[in-house]
Parts: sequence; structure tokens; C-alpha cells
Amino acid sequence: MSHNSFGNLLKFTTWGESHGEAIGCVVDGFPAGIPINTKYIQSRLELRKPGQSKFTTQRKEKDEVNILSGVFNGKSTGAPISMIIYNSDQRIKDYSEIKNKFRPGHADYTYFMKYKNYDYRGGGRSSARETAMRVAAGALAELLLKKISKNKIKVTSAVIQIGNEKIDNNTAWNNNFINKNPFFSPNKSIVKKWEDLILMHRKKGSSLGAVIEVRVSNCPVGIGEPIYQKLDSELSKAIMSINAVKGIEFGTGFNLVNYDGTTGSDQINYKNKKINFHTNHAGGILGGISSGQDIVFRYIVKPTSSVLSEKNTVTKNFKNTKIRTKGRHDPCVGIRAVPVGIAMTNFVIGDLLLIHKSKSL
Amino acid sequence: MSHNSFGNLLKFTTWGESHGEAIGCVVDGFPAGIPINTKYIQSRLELRKPGQSKFTTQRKEKDEVNILSGVFNGKSTGAPISMIIYNSDQRIKDYSEIKNKFRPGHADYTYFMKYKNYDYRGGGRSSARETAMRVAAGALAELLLKKISKNKIKVTSAVIQIGNEKIDNNTAWNNNFINKNPFFSPNKSIVKKWEDLILMHRKKGSSLGAVIEVRVSNCPVGIGEPIYQKLDSELSKAIMSINAVKGIEFGTGFNLVNYDGTTGSDQINYKNKKINFHTNHAGGILGGISSGQDIVFRYIVKPTSSVLSEKNTVTKNFKNTKIRTKGRHDPCVGIRAVPVGIAMTNFVIGDLLLIHKSKSL
Amino acid sequence: MSHNSFGNLLKFTTWGESHGEAIGCVVDGFPAGIPINTKYIQSRLELRKPGQSKFTTQRKEKDEVNILSGVFNGKSTGAPISMIIYNSDQRIKDYSEIKNKFRPGHADYTYFMKYKNYDYRGGGRSSARETAMRVAAGALAELLLKKISKNKIKVTSAVIQIGNEKIDNNTAWNNNFINKNPFFSPNKSIVKKWEDLILMHRKKGSSLGAVIEVRVSNCPVGIGEPIYQKLDSELSKAIMSINAVKGIEFGTGFNLVNYDGTTGSDQINYKNKKINFHTNHAGGILGGISSGQDIVFRYIVKPTSSVLSEKNTVTKNFKNTKIRTKGRHDPCVGIRAVPVGIAMTNFVIGDLLLIHKSKSL
Amino acid sequence: MSHNSFGNLLKFTTWGESHGEAIGCVVDGFPAGIPINTKYIQSRLELRKPGQSKFTTQRKEKDEVNILSGVFNGKSTGAPISMIIYNSDQRIKDYSEIKNKFRPGHADYTYFMKYKNYDYRGGGRSSARETAMRVAAGALAELLLKKISKNKIKVTSAVIQIGNEKIDNNTAWNNNFINKNPFFSPNKSIVKKWEDLILMHRKKGSSLGAVIEVRVSNCPVGIGEPIYQKLDSELSKAIMSINAVKGIEFGTGFNLVNYDGTTGSDQINYKNKKINFHTNHAGGILGGISSGQDIVFRYIVKPTSSVLSEKNTVTKNFKNTKIRTKGRHDPCVGIRAVPVGIAMTNFVIGDLLLIHKSKSL
Repeated sequence: MSHNSFGNLLKFTTWGESHGEAIGCVVDGFPAGIPINTKYIQSRLELRKPGQSKFTTQRKEKDEVNILSGVFNGKSTGAPISMIIYNSDQRIKDYSEIKNKFRPGHADYTYFMKYKNYDYRGGGRSSARETAMRVAAGALAELLLKKISKNKIKVTSAVIQIGNEKIDNNTAWNNNFINKNPFFSPNKSIVKKWEDLILMHRKKGSSLGAVIEVRVSNCPVGIGEPIYQKLDSELSKAIMSINAVKGIEFGTGFNLVNYDGTTGSDQINYKNKKINFHTNHAGGILGGISSGQDIVFRYIVKPTSSVLSEKNTVTKNFKNTKIRTKGRHDPCVGIRAVPVGIAMTNFVIGDLLLIHKSKSL
Repeated sequence: MSHNSFGNLLKFTTWGESHGEAIGCVVDGFPAGIPINTKYIQSRLELRKPGQSKFTTQRKEKDEVNILSGVFNGKSTGAPISMIIYNSDQRIKDYSEIKNKFRPGHADYTYFMKYKNYDYRGGGRSSARETAMRVAAGALAELLLKKISKNKIKVTSAVIQIGNEKIDNNTAWNNNFINKNPFFSPNKSIVKKWEDLILMHRKKGSSLGAVIEVRVSNCPVGIGEPIYQKLDSELSKAIMSINAVKGIEFGTGFNLVNYDGTTGSDQINYKNKKINFHTNHAGGILGGISSGQDIVFRYIVKPTSSVLSEKNTVTKNFKNTKIRTKGRHDPCVGIRAVPVGIAMTNFVIGDLLLIHKSKSL
Repeated sequence: MSHNSFGNLLKFTTWGESHGEAIGCVVDGFPAGIPINTKYIQSRLELRKPGQSKFTTQRKEKDEVNILSGVFNGKSTGAPISMIIYNSDQRIKDYSEIKNKFRPGHADYTYFMKYKNYDYRGGGRSSARETAMRVAAGALAELLLKKISKNKIKVTSAVIQIGNEKIDNNTAWNNNFINKNPFFSPNKSIVKKWEDLILMHRKKGSSLGAVIEVRVSNCPVGIGEPIYQKLDSELSKAIMSINAVKGIEFGTGFNLVNYDGTTGSDQINYKNKKINFHTNHAGGILGGISSGQDIVFRYIVKPTSSVLSEKNTVTKNFKNTKIRTKGRHDPCVGIRAVPVGIAMTNFVIGDLLLIHKSKSL
Repeated sequence: MSHNSFGNLLKFTTWGESHGEAIGCVVDGFPAGIPINTKYIQSRLELRKPGQSKFTTQRKEKDEVNILSGVFNGKSTGAPISMIIYNSDQRIKDYSEIKNKFRPGHADYTYFMKYKNYDYRGGGRSSARETAMRVAAGALAELLLKKISKNKIKVTSAVIQIGNEKIDNNTAWNNNFINKNPFFSPNKSIVKKWEDLILMHRKKGSSLGAVIEVRVSNCPVGIGEPIYQKLDSELSKAIMSINAVKGIEFGTGFNLVNYDGTTGSDQINYKNKKINFHTNHAGGILGGISSGQDIVFRYIVKPTSSVLSEKNTVTKNFKNTKIRTKGRHDPCVGIRAVPVGIAMTNFVIGDLLLIHKSKSL
């Protein structure tokens, strides 16, 4: 059992605070002989890095990853892989004003009550900065999956809703477009609307929520261990551990309540030497095990609570007060959650795939 | 790591198939000195038991629990508590017809592909019958919480939507009514509609989905271990492991996408020597740690795929065929999921509470 | 983390008290498709069963194992395997006299202080009766190893010392003889001495310690995960968890202090397409990983503290008193530890082999 | 499950190779509010540091520890504590000669076979250099125990045998002297003999084994979780994971075979409001739980296999060859194992104490 570790056979442990000297992670259980391309890991970090566009926070972090162990001559050795990112942009003064006030919607109050201390410098351990290391660990898992599946397994993710602006269900999902726009939108048609919406909220110092969809293609049948390491159960644990996520659903999800047992299940037939599913209400998972269909799920990232408008709150000495959160915050944190969700998904699949492999005699 | 175990410091392991000799569980890490009332555990099982009303399956199972170890003179001893339920109603013939066909929407196909065998007798290990043992384990956790919290912590749950019939948001939630109607409805006003809806679907051999809400009151502040044992993350893992659940959301959940950072976070003030939250968008959890507010979440249980209407499927030898699932199935399995969700919630809170306790010097 | 579970990918959980209704275990992570022969498991239990000869306790237990889940049509299904043994010989009266006294050398005092209760009926959970379930779980691991290694991997064990009567180092170790004498002696020459020694101690109501050696042949190279799942580390944890074991050593063990770096390490050469070790000081393990040599270790089982002679002790109310342990105890519990040590060794190797397998791409 | 992690509720994960850029560890589950004195941690590292006297290796490593997270304003925050030591003395050339040869008695061959690669630069991950991080993690555990037990619990350890020169059983054990001589001897009388012995072996390029004893005083009754987290079982796992350790025994250990059930168990009486044990054959542990007596155990550290005399070995291409290990090795690695054993013992007790605490309602 580890509070700050994730995974079973393949495991990572993260450490570090948003305004400490560095953040890092240790990936354990990673097989030997996997080519490790640091540039590739860095490229995944760039997708999450703040300050990339006017639609995300203007905080600057270089987010340069260093591998300190476990790789020799360009390949994993089977030893734990330690990665570190030194923090560069630690403007303490931005936070001094809120030093003694609990920011509503943040973890300040609960951390303070739990640990009898808190790191007022931007959230400390509870900051989303921690997710950078998930991206690094997830990139390693991706390299592992590439090798094992011969580049077949592919995790893709896109934002499908910002505020009340939702992508039309009938809109084409264009994988190539996703990384070519600042919103990770899978379709060009909504981009202008989102731009306007975010700029409007940014201007008034407010923020927006988002819904993100993840799709995994070519996941082999059989991944996931019933009853308590089901693929959807492990993915939910993974995604729900990401800051600001408040819900997750698979396949048709909550909307399945509007179907009946006839229309809401996926019929199958056999053709061209493979099983074909007529629909994908189940999101590619049956009984907690991957069915070979695309794995599909969505999650909601709430609007960040750090906004300019004044709110009621309480000081560390339990006096009523008001608070405005200045700082340089994301108008829509959901955008930068996309690479984090991809990373966690790659990690879960890599982990469960190794477990499945161990039992396949 | 255990595929069939759940929990960390407080842990249960389930075993058994729907049509085997028995099902059971072992609860480990249970503190000594807790009064164990077998009748109370049995009363929780009665809530989940099939055949209770015409709105659930007509299968008869006595579901009589026996405690085989870990209890001496009416109290837990600190040793593992083993519980067993012998299976009584094992009508094999009901299932013989579907012996060689994968039931669409069920785990037959994925189990067969993963394990190269499957127990055609009603789903074997993948059957919801396994959840009876969760109810027993959860009842033990409840007894533990009663003792630790002096009867304060209370987990309540109700069905809030069946098919497209949803309880009005403004409707009063009456805790006393929940166990007095066959639907676990928290309000009388919708009961007639649900009766009609279920009887209609039962008649045509179809089935309905449901949305269930869980509320935990008086959970102390500080429960949950960031970053990877967050309270919401552990609850999601728990609930998503229940058969047929396809999504979960906390507090305002997916609907938070329609709020902004000002309206979507919960402001606080201090009054009468305690922290008061103006709203509960967060569902009682901040940064993965309980905030002292009610913990609130909802989950969707899909309509069971076992219906009378004919569906396309494939045999174990990969021939295309048709299937009708006769048997004695629940027209709305979501109803019987209610006590299971309560059990898992009690268990998660009990486990995380022990962990939190171990660190409180 | 589980207090009453052992293993990692392959795991068993035991439950039950010596004088409760039954004892049992659940084996999880066991691969599907392994032939499960209940008679074979029973045959392993017979080796540990009390009342087999006049050199062990005269308590009668049928020790008849039942498999309740996880096996279908003679093969493992991949689901957890639950096994149970009902207790038959529960003569409570034998123990009534010592109900309120801590037996010196037993766990009565520490259990009472830890749990604030204790099961005076023969040790309850701390009784060696628990080890019957280890034998059953180990037998399953053995069946797994047989299948994976095509009957090559073989765990053998024998008693090499009882009291001060030790087998001569130059004495031949005859595998076939081990199960043909009541002491698990690997050589006939010492049998008479042990008979006399044990009968003498039995007569005066005293008891003897024993040293047991375990040898594993044909274990493949590469088993064991550094740094904290080393093969010798996991075996030590396993063996040291057996009742009454007070020490373990690998290869030349403690005697290595009498060697220097030249004579105490095993030189190697390559011949006939394989690595040959000139000696086996290391006990078949280098850096925590099996080297392909025989794995060899020894452990000491102390003389049971249940003897007829009067000892000083204390009551549950902390009054000084005297005690004599009557009951029907083993004059040399080390003998019946042999099949337990074999079981634990098989289980450790099975577990680490699955882990190694999961990483071998 | 983690290959490179140790502990349960309190856990550390180590990473890094002997000749990589750095080594490090992450300590998770460490309670908040514990004063963390970096100088104290450094002082523990100094005890293990190479190059301290002519009786240990002449390799120079500064072994300067940096804390990168989890500590704020001099106290632990409850977040993971990351510690790092940068490697300074990486003389690659010393190892170039043996680049392609397996060093007998080392892990070269088994690592190569397991991982299909190896780090020839001084053992890489298998090097005892890893143990520096155990000392750092153990020092944290010690600070925790100091706080919890109000400085009562105390782990002491000394070398009691080097080669065939053993401390007389009747010799007084002087805790103050242990850190005042280069051998961690508890008594002055043997120091001259050990000096001569080591210098002789050093001169001829050979090495010596050692036996080390550990004593824990004032450990409260009740620590250790039966059946599979027994205190002795966890300590054995911990100690046996240290490089070059080949055996461990508790209390009277292997010598118990020379006692009978009357003389070999510890009688008790009650006096001055506490339980008194007449002897300590059990080493302070009964049924896997601490009894309140001193916990006493011993372990053997084999002579290092890196010696000047020529040995037979094999190349990575499986050709027979000869090898001499030059380098700057310890003539008796057992000496520097002393602080490592202390660290592991502190960590095990800290971990099991937190577990016990979580169950004490």
C-alpha cells in the first residue's frame, strides 16, 4: 500500500511540491530492454506544460525531465527509473497574500485539518504540478506498450466540451487535428466558439469546466482482472485521482439509463475471422475485461476555483474573511488535463497487460 | 496486490461462483473488540436478497451467512473473519440452453478469451451473486464505524432514477421511506410511476437502468490519502467494480461543466464553532480528503442485458447464432445494487479511517 | 497489505482458529487451466497430519480438504480457489485448566496484550493448526510449478538434526527414504538414535528442537526481484512466519564466517553448454536471484514449550502462578514442520516465477 | 507490490546505480509534524560511508544527502520525503578490466541472465552502494520512533565476530564504545585481534566475514501482525535483503536445538507492576509479536568475493577465463553493514508500530 504510488506490477511513485526544489517520480517494475527515448518523454511533457498559449496559465515552467537511473545505453535495465524536474518559476510573492486564508474549492482547508500544516506556496503537494510526473511516467508506459504491441495500442484523447459549448455528436473526430489546436479539440468547427468563450472568462478572471474523452484502439482482448482489478475500475481510480476531476463514465455512460436491455447492449457477430460488435455502449469493457473494441470513456474537469471575484472564506485562525485569487491561473484547466489522462490510461493498460501476461502460460 | 481483494489496511477477499457450492469472503485487518452481531449482518443481506418483491428476480436464495472465524464471545478477536453463504437455488437446467453461446452485454466472451474456459452456469465468477459477500463485508465495516464514530457516521443510499423517470430535484429525500418501498426510493411521489414502468418492462421481458445516489453524513474531516488513495478515487474504484455500473460522479458531477469558477466552488464561513459550506458542488471531498460536508455521489447501473428479445451473438466455436435469455432476471438490477453500494462505501471509509488514524500521532 | 495473506502475484490468505468450526484459505492469482488433483493436495496434508506415528502428537484431525471454488471440470478457472478443512477433534476440556494462565514460550501473553482478548482453546489463531492451510496452498503452487516447468522444479526437504543428534555431513541424502520414515530423515543411519531420543523426551513430557534442510532442484536462472523481493529475502519471510522457527541460513550460512573471500565464493566455468559452479556456498542465489544451482537453506524449529514440567508463569489477572502443559503435544514439532516448509518454498517460487514471467517480453 | 520498495504503511523506495549520476529514495506514509534534522540523517550516513578508516574500502564518496520534498519549516508535512545523494567518485577505469567477465560470488551472472544486460560499472543496481539510501530512510524512521516513544525505543548493533575471532559470551557489551572504534565492537578486548586479522587479509587482498548482533530496547508489547507480518518475519525479510547477508537467527537461534522444551522457553513472573522474563531464548518475540523484552537477533555477512587471488570464471560470451578483482574493496564488508542493519530494524519497527496503532481503538 502506498499513498503516493500508482499501479500494481508496473508502479510509479511521485514526490515533490509545486514550489519546492524539484518534483520527481520513480517507475518500478519496468521491464528491461525497452528503448527509452528521453526526447519522446519530453515531447509528452510539452503538451501539458503551462504557458503554451493564451488559453492556459502564463506561468513559465521549463519542465525539463532528467532520467537519473534505470536506463543504460538507451535501454531500460529492469532497475527503477528515477525522473526529476527542477522547479524554475517559483514566484513566492504571488502567493503571500493568501498565506493565511483557505482558498474555497481548493484543498487548503482539508490538508490543514489532516496534516496540521500546509504549504501555502501554491498548493504544495495538492497542486496540479504533480501531474507533470504522471505524464513522464505515462510516457514510459507508452514506450513499453509500443514495444509489446508493435505500435498497435494507441491512446487518444480530446476535449469535447468547454463550458456549455459541446461538440456535436455527429462531428467527425480527427486525430491529426487534436494536437494542432490549443484546445485538444478533435474537430475544427468548435474552435472559434471555445476561443471566444475562454477569452471572455479570462478577461473577467473567471474559469470554465471541460469534458474530456479518451479512446484506446487496438487494446487486446483479456486485459483487466476481475473482481477488484477490473479495467474500468482501475481506470476510474486513475482518472479520479487527477486534480479537479469530478466524474467518469464508460461507453454510453450515464445516458444508458435512457436505454433498455435490448437497445443498450452490444450485439455481436463473427465475420472476417473476428468478432464484430454492432455498437459500443459498454465502452469496450465487459465484466471488467477488455473486449477488443475501442475503450471509450469521458471525464469532467471542474472549473478551477482560483478566480478574481471575491469569495467568502476563513483564515487559518478561523476568522471569517474574503478572498480573491490573483496568480496566473488556467481559465480552463481541463485543457491541460488531456495529456495527464492519456498518461494515466497508458499506465493502467501497461500495468494490467503485464499482469495478464504473467498468468498466460 | 490481489485480484479478488479490496481495501488496504482493512481488506476483504471474496471467492465463489454463482452456481458453485458456496460463496464467501475473508475480512482481514479488522480491529479486535468490535461487537459482531450476526443478525445485523443478515439484515443487510436481506436488503440485497433476490426474490423479495415482484420488481426483482424471482430466483430464491436463502443467503444465510455463517461466520467461521475471527469472532469469539460476540466480539472480533483481531483474527481474519471468514464468512460463508451456501448456494441453495442452483437450477442448472435454466442455463443449459445458453451453454455454448456468448450472452451479449455479459462477460461470457471476455472471460472465455482471457481464461480459455468459462462457467456457463449463470456467469460463474462474473455473476452479481458475488456482491452478496460485499454486503456482508460492508456490514462488518459498518459495525466498525459505528463503534469508532459512536454511531455518527451514516451511509444512506437511494435510487433516484429508473429508466427516464427521475426524481425531481426539489423533492424531499426521506431517509425513513427508503427501506419501506421495494425501489429504495427516497420519496413516495415517484413510486407509482416506477411500478408501472418496471411491470411494463418485466412483461415484455426487457430491463431498465437506474441511477443511484449515496450520501455519507458525519464523516470526519481528513479521511483520504493524497495523491493515489484519495477518498473519491478509492470510492470510484469501489463502485466501478460493481457489476453493470458504467459511471460515477461526485457532488455536482458532470453538470459542473455548466458552472464557472465563481459559481461552481463552495464558499465557506465560520459560525457556531464550525466551518459551514454554502453549497456542496464538491460532494464533500477537497483534494481527495473529506471536508466534513456530506459526501455525495451518484452512479449509473445499466439495464441488464439478459432480455427475452432475440439478439445476434456467436457460439464458443465462433459460429453466428441468435440468443434469447430466459432465466429469472431482474427487470432493474439497479435496485438490488443499492445495498451493495452502501457496503462498498462503508468499507472504503472504514479502511481510509484506519489509515488516517495510524498517522495521527 | 494483508496481515493474513502471503505472496504477491500469487497469493494466499488463511483464516480460522485451532478450535473453531473450520480453517481455510483462499488462493488468488492462480492461473487458469492448471489440472487440480484434490487427492494430490490431500496427500500433502497427510504428511503434516497429527497422529501419524508415536513420534508426533496423538491428537486426531482428519484434515480433509474441500475445494469450494475456482476449479471447474478438474482445472483451475482463474478465479480464486477457496479451500476448507472442518475441525473435528475439539476437546475443549483439555485446555480448561490453562484457561487463565499464559503458557510460557507461547503467544498467549503477546496476543492478550495486543488484542485484549484471547482464545484459550489451544492457541486459537496462533496455533500451528493454521499451517495445514499453508500445505494446501503450497500443494496448489506445486501443481502450478509442475505444469510450468514440465515436472522439473522439485522441492525436497528433510530433518537433519534433532536435539544434539545431527546427520553427518558426509552422509548420503536419499530422497526416496525421506517419506519412508516418521522423521523425514534423508538417511537411515540416524533413525534409531532419533527414535530413542524422542521416546525418552516423550516419556518425561519434554520436547526437542530440530534443524530442517530444504533443497530446490532445477529452479531456472533469474527468479527473484531485487532489491526488496530477493528470492532469499522472500523465502526468509516465508519460513520465519512458520510457528517456532527461530533462524534461517542459506548455503554455507553462518559458517561462512570461517571462510575468506577466496574460499567462500563459488567459482564458475562453462562446460557442456552450461555454467558449472565448483561449490555452493551461496545456496543457489546471487544478488537475490536464482543462479541455476540447487537452492539450499536450513532452519531451526525450537522445542515446543508445551511440556509437563512445572514452570513459572502469570495469570490473566497478573498473579504469579505455576503451569504444566498437559494436552497431547508433539515431542518434536520440527518433524511436522517439514511439509510446511516445502509448501512455503513452492509458493514463493511459484509467485516469483509468475512475476519474472510478466517482465520477460 | 514493489520490487524496489520496502515496508507497508511506512514505505521507502530506492533507486540508482553505484556509478550513475545519483542514488535516492522516496519515503512514503511518513506522518506529519515530525521534526526532521538533516544533520542527524547525515550523521547516520557517516557511519556507513566508505573511506572512514583503513579497515574499510578506500573509495571516497561524500554521501551528502539532500531532502527534496516532504519537509517544510523543519517538520515533515505528511507528503512523500524524497532524498538524493549525488555520486562523486565514479572511477570507471577501475572496472574496465572486468567489463566482460562475471565476478564469482557477485550478482553479475544472475543479473545478466535475468535482464539480458548488465551495468559492469561496479555492480550497478546490485552494488552495496544502494544501502546508503536505506540508512537515510532508516534515520527518518528513527526520528519517528523518537517522537512516538519519547526517545525510549533504541536500536543498537555491534559486530560480534570477524573471521574466527568471536567475542566471548561473557564479555560486557558497552553501548558507548561501539561507535568509538572502527569495527563497531561492543567491547575493547577484541579490538587488537580484529585489527591484526583485517590488516593481514587486506595485505593479501583477501576478505573476511562477520556476525552482527542487533538489540532493540524498550519496544512496546504488541508490535507485529500475525500470521504473515510477524515481527521476526518482517525483520528477516529486511535483513536478508541486505547485500551479502546469508543467515539470521533470533534469541538463542540455531543453538536452541541443544535445549529442550523445559530449558529452552522463557518463564515469566510478575513483579514491580511488570512482567519479567527469566531468560530471553525467544529474542523478545512470541507468536510474531514483541513481548516487551529486548528484541535480539544476529546475522552473518559473508566475506566479499572481490579478492586479489585469481579465480575461475566465464565471460559474457561464455568463454572460460580467470579473474582478479582489483578495485578498492572492503576487507570486511560486515563492518559497514552495521548501520544498514540498524536502519532496516528502525524502519520495520516504525512500520509495524503504525500498523498496530491503526487498530488500537
